[in-house]
Amino acid sequence: MSPKRYALLVAGGSGTRMKSEIPKQFLLLKNIPILAHTINQFLKCNCEIILVLPSNHSETFKKEVLHFCNSQNMLLAQGGNTRFESVKNGLDLVSKQGLVAVHDAVRPLVSVEIIEQSFKYATQYGAAVAAVDLKDSIREHNKARERSNYKLVQTPQTFTSELIKKAYLQAYKPSFTDDASVLESLGHSIHLFEGDYKNIKITTPEDLLVAEALMR
Amino acid sequence: MSPKRYALLVAGGSGTRMKSEIPKQFLLLKNIPILAHTINQFLKCNCEIILVLPSNHSETFKKEVLHFCNSQNMLLAQGGNTRFESVKNGLDLVSKQGLVAVHDAVRPLVSVEIIEQSFKYATQYGAAVAAVDLKDSIREHNKARERSNYKLVQTPQTFTSELIKKAYLQAYKPSFTDDASVLESLGHSIHLFEGDYKNIKITTPEDLLVAEALMR
Repeated sequence: MSPKRYALLVAGGSGTRMKSEIPKQFLLLKNIPILAHTINQFLKCNCEIILVLPSNHSETFKKEVLHFCNSQNMLLAQGGNTRFESVKNGLDLVSKQGLVAVHDAVRPLVSVEIIEQSFKYATQYGAAVAAVDLKDSIREHNKARERSNYKLVQTPQTFTSELIKKAYLQAYKPSFTDDASVLESLGHSIHLFEGDYKNIKITTPEDLLVAEALMR
Repeated sequence: MSPKRYALLVAGGSGTRMKSEIPKQFLLLKNIPILAHTINQFLKCNCEIILVLPSNHSETFKKEVLHFCNSQNMLLAQGGNTRFESVKNGLDLVSKQGLVAVHDAVRPLVSVEIIEQSFKYATQYGAAVAAVDLKDSIREHNKARERSNYKLVQTPQTFTSELIKKAYLQAYKPSFTDDASVLESLGHSIHLFEGDYKNIKITTPEDLLVAEALMR
């Protein structure tokens, strides 16, 4: 029997960078809310959905998003003040042993292939993270760096439930830049696998245009 | 009198990453070759164009691109085996004192505003480089890094002709990741200014779709 799969979707953003009153996860992409696209991709991969939303967004979600989702059967967790707290709240709803894919709700273009790979590598290595090469040159504190030494990290970041739950028992540290870094702080290594340039994070109005183009 | 302005456009690529026989600078974007878009943006800013092209591409350029350009008056330099050599060949055609904006030919979405800023800051600081913040998390050799310490570097990278010519008299070093790093190797600092997420480098077929979307 294959292990139970959870998708922990973090939709914490308030949408200020989008110059929009509507939080970006609710904006329409090809007439469907961004969040519904994301949820449906993980449903295709037989995941149980745990959606972390700021509490004042849950009404909007139920009214505007839920009927676009291919299943209404999902768990809602309350968003925290930080991403760390939001993920922690979501993990409290992981009741069975299995695998947990943590994913930014505003990455609706994640492919089924990438999700499946994240579960495959998480089974094999305990922790798997999608990452891509840089296309531009890079500087650190205004010093030129060799870009081939770097990777840009996306989500899903997928873990065994045991590992990620244990990792989130730690107190928050500023060095926790993503879920993988929370795990590494326990001394556990992660497996990077090839992500997808199309799997963009929608954070600006231009990103919405880009996403529409990439969906064609 | 404002200083003489050169745009040194580097079109060295052979197009293999585009899965296309046609080098990517010749591909059409809204029915106009990418390269013509780029040239026209710098013409709008009163630049003399120095175009660095592999020698076997100059016929294609004259047949397919030149008539889309808003001026036929430009200098052609021969592409080298490396980007360093290509820029060096282009700099040989900078005959007057002034400012030189070095720019990737496959960044056709560069705005007039960004070009003007690069000239303004190059006048002020001697060397100015467009750069943007990272949207994704970043890792170096699979170690999580704080993304706010990093910037992604774009072009134009704009310099006084004196400084950039002097910098390119150096022998090539592997640490030369871009033009700015060539200058810094002489001990000169550069000024980073806020670039533009739309100013993408077209290196994959998806980038072409994205560029079309961003032009709307």
